Amino acid sequence: MPLPGFVDVQAAAGRLRGHAHRTPVLRSATADARAGASLFFKCENFQRMGAFKFRGAFNAIARLSPAQQRAGVVTFSSGNHAQAIALAARELGVSATIVMPSDAPAAKLAATRGYGGEIVTHDRFTEDREALAQRIARERGATLIPPYDHADVIAGQGTAALELFEEVGPLDALFVCLGGGGLLAGCALAAQAMAPDCAVYGVEPEAGDDGLQSLRAGRIVTIAVPTTIADGAMTTHLGELTFPIIRERVRDILTVDDADLVQAMRFFAERMKMVVEPTGCLAAAGAFAAAPRWHGRRVGVIVSGGNVDLAAWAGWIGAG
Amino acid sequence: MPLPGFVDVQAAAGRLRGHAHRTPVLRSATADARAGASLFFKCENFQRMGAFKFRGAFNAIARLSPAQQRAGVVTFSSGNHAQAIALAARELGVSATIVMPSDAPAAKLAATRGYGGEIVTHDRFTEDREALAQRIARERGATLIPPYDHADVIAGQGTAALELFEEVGPLDALFVCLGGGGLLAGCALAAQAMAPDCAVYGVEPEAGDDGLQSLRAGRIVTIAVPTTIADGAMTTHLGELTFPIIRERVRDILTVDDADLVQAMRFFAERMKMVVEPTGCLAAAGAFAAAPRWHGRRVGVIVSGGNVDLAAWAGWIGAG
Repeated sequence: MPLPGFVDVQAAAGRLRGHAHRTPVLRSATADARAGASLFFKCENFQRMGAFKFRGAFNAIARLSPAQQRAGVVTFSSGNHAQAIALAARELGVSATIVMPSDAPAAKLAATRGYGGEIVTHDRFTEDREALAQRIARERGATLIPPYDHADVIAGQGTAALELFEEVGPLDALFVCLGGGGLLAGCALAAQAMAPDCAVYGVEPEAGDDGLQSLRAGRIVTIAVPTTIADGAMTTHLGELTFPIIRERVRDILTVDDADLVQAMRFFAERMKMVVEPTGCLAAAGAFAAAPRWHGRRVGVIVSGGNVDLAAWAGWIGAG
Repeated sequence: MPLPGFVDVQAAAGRLRGHAHRTPVLRSATADARAGASLFFKCENFQRMGAFKFRGAFNAIARLSPAQQRAGVVTFSSGNHAQAIALAARELGVSATIVMPSDAPAAKLAATRGYGGEIVTHDRFTEDREALAQRIARERGATLIPPYDHADVIAGQGTAALELFEEVGPLDALFVCLGGGGLLAGCALAAQAMAPDCAVYGVEPEAGDDGLQSLRAGRIVTIAVPTTIADGAMTTHLGELTFPIIRERVRDILTVDDADLVQAMRFFAERMKMVVEPTGCLAAAGAFAAAPRWHGRRVGVIVSGGNVDLAAWAGWIGAG
């Protein structure tokens, strides 16, 4: 599969019009004072189904031929991508099968089912979910849409940064969370075309720094499943498509720990009145940590999602 | 003091430019499905200091002469108006004195002080806070800016609806929370000029239905301090300026109970990833209750604020 480019991000933006929310860019004088910089928060926690993932999922399914759409789509995910595929497929009249672990939280299974997805559970200790999804796709003639290593998914996620630059103009730096790299790669494509001088940073959990290791090694490094509250960034390796884009276009990768994420979560709740999931706090935590370097400059932060168990969230922010 | 008109709302919008946030209008497919209507949520919980009150406070202080500004401003409030006056005054280089009850929550005293306001405490059982504020204003030659019954405050609050109509065009109905009536009166002025066919509704706590009683009686009815979780709507009577505007331009007043507010709060948290204070849920609760009447129509909802003790909030939404 060839690497996507900015033209694909632009085409995705056209497909998403009228389907995805154009999410707001929020400001906070308190955040600016704390960072010593002008921060622009692109709030994908207000995106449909609560995260940027809807963008890539919808773009990928919309790109399929009518025959492919009739045959349906399949994916494997226990997180936001599952709900994104289910909702985007329903919106496009396509049937969707989602492979999820049998011990996934009931709320996530219910949410995915609520969006109309058919769920196939697997035993995460004995079955390879990706192989299972591939087998289902083969048997049904359906199309497999993986969570991040897919050109149309990457292009779709990039529309978040495209909208940000459209709304606020060029930025000096842009911070984006990093799991498998779909959002980061897509945003980097948008940044290079729309704000060539903007330094793009990926931010990943300290416990799962495979991205940083990969960038340093010059090849994709695979790690064990990391333990972090950032459940959307518990990936073990970058993708064959996301890695080369990130290597070429991303200035550097930063890591933050769970305590940094909790602090950002609390800031968002108290000062910006938003529910942000731990993974959605990665970029902000990275921006706050790197702030001295960007003193007085214009800095973008992608707030990637808000899907979190509210009881756990309340506990983290000290309100439980 | 003469009644404000739409021209005053427009002038206020000019003064607020670059000072107040132009808050986003959010949509939710789930909310639309639940209501059977197209809902447009104007999110003043993302306004500066967390509530629409900044609009009126800033407009009122910005309207003062240089000599008046040098002499400072005074107000009485234990809620969002206190923080709004403190922040707006600081922004305009004006000193602000806030009369607050000595037993106000420490967090509110700290927040008001944090915005640079000088706090004078009073004993709420033995001292009349309004009389005390008037005396301080007289002694210092300062200007008293009450929380709602003031033409410039009303005009400032109306800019919330002005922005909403500018962004989404005419609406069939608009729901606004009702305490003292500043926001409702201001929004009604904007609606009459920008969407003359729009039916404007005030929504107040069932326990504090003085607005409804006043509308029915054709005169301002005063009630005892109501017991409700909507602490921003615990007013006992409408104002001399807000009442005539509401009587003339508001279609009707609805009431909702605390359980309705809790339900709306939970909806905002779970589905829209927002922290909304109980008072900020009045309009949405009213809109959901009245939804059958507006089936298939375009309905605006002012989400007035997000300043709430997060532990209490977590308890209400069942996450505590």
